[in-house]
Amino acid sequence: MKVVIGLSGGMDSATLLGILLGQGVEVHCCTFYYGSKHGRYENEAAVRILKYYREHPVKYYKFNLLDIFSNFSSNLLQSGGAIPEGHYAAESMKKTVVPGRNTIFASIMSGLAESIGADAISLGVHSGDHHIYPDCRPEYITALHHTIQEATEGQVQVITPFINDNKTSILKRGYSLNPPVPYRLTRTCYKDQPVACGKCGSCVERLEAFSNLKIKDPVDYE
Amino acid sequence: MKVVIGLSGGMDSATLLGILLGQGVEVHCCTFYYGSKHGRYENEAAVRILKYYREHPVKYYKFNLLDIFSNFSSNLLQSGGAIPEGHYAAESMKKTVVPGRNTIFASIMSGLAESIGADAISLGVHSGDHHIYPDCRPEYITALHHTIQEATEGQVQVITPFINDNKTSILKRGYSLNPPVPYRLTRTCYKDQPVACGKCGSCVERLEAFSNLKIKDPVDYE
Repeated sequence: MKVVIGLSGGMDSATLLGILLGQGVEVHCCTFYYGSKHGRYENEAAVRILKYYREHPVKYYKFNLLDIFSNFSSNLLQSGGAIPEGHYAAESMKKTVVPGRNTIFASIMSGLAESIGADAISLGVHSGDHHIYPDCRPEYITALHHTIQEATEGQVQVITPFINDNKTSILKRGYSLNPPVPYRLTRTCYKDQPVACGKCGSCVERLEAFSNLKIKDPVDYE
Repeated sequence: MKVVIGLSGGMDSATLLGILLGQGVEVHCCTFYYGSKHGRYENEAAVRILKYYREHPVKYYKFNLLDIFSNFSSNLLQSGGAIPEGHYAAESMKKTVVPGRNTIFASIMSGLAESIGADAISLGVHSGDHHIYPDCRPEYITALHHTIQEATEGQVQVITPFINDNKTSILKRGYSLNPPVPYRLTRTCYKDQPVACGKCGSCVERLEAFSNLKIKDPVDYE
């Protein structure tokens, strides 16, 4: 099987990569640079994660989408206001929704998948994303799958193995793999700073997951 | 009403623009440069068309997608084989399908629409496209509409007024407008040459439409 995934550099897509490689899938990874405040740190993390899995011949595609997203409004972008602090599911986190993001990423991945003869694209979206991010909900993913199936005459599916999982169960799964997913190399914080803040919704959700498993998060916090 | 359209520089999207402006819609036009053989000529045509409608305050966004599409395979692209000659609906024309194209264009338009508070995105796809291009078929458009509705929590619709029309009826409608659509300024030919070839599927379909209405095509052919 040949699958195109989006590798953000965060925990979820790193776990997705680990699972697929463990299953012997031929993985093609896309990273997207789209002008988010944490974009540089995310992309560096993605490269570190790929290096960790270097025994596997993973093909890597870098897409610079800065020009596209410079027209869009979101606090997650360099051009937008401050990253809100607090819980990941708080209403204030809606300011971090990026219009069109997953549809743009998935459409590029589907074009690549069709071109290289891949069977699927896969996204690491999970149930913790559903409340705030419309383009992570099951209804959206179903519609996206139909769209890409129609566009590719049935060649390319959309696979989202974590759609009913939460961050804690993803983490548990990642640690159960051999080798385990290198969470110390991942980047979760939304802020424009090298060291994670520990206060934005994204950090809070990550810390909760580690706390639930009684494991110390190997990443540094300020 | 505020609508984001894709303006290719061809007949269909030029007609779409003329209709929407005639209805008093606030139109935001996107052009996409994606490395097709005729891309330069298409984009020049789009600019000419916008100039023709300069009394209307149309906002214009240029997206350079060359880096994205350089990873994809199609004879329509500079990187691909020759443009086939013959009828638009011929099997050979399948070589001109560009993977992911309409999904990528529509996803960018939807992100823009959400950011600027637009009600819809609109595409000039028509029934002549259905046989060869999966991403122009009604089933695809319905799925795309659902995807974008879910992603934008119902804000943005997908409107395709020509989905049941053919090239002849689009042309007829364009000539019935006041002012008429400036077909002399449009670019239809798929080949990498300034003057239209008159032999590729795209030219053949256009010439058929003019012939059906007994109107001389105002564009030059080699």
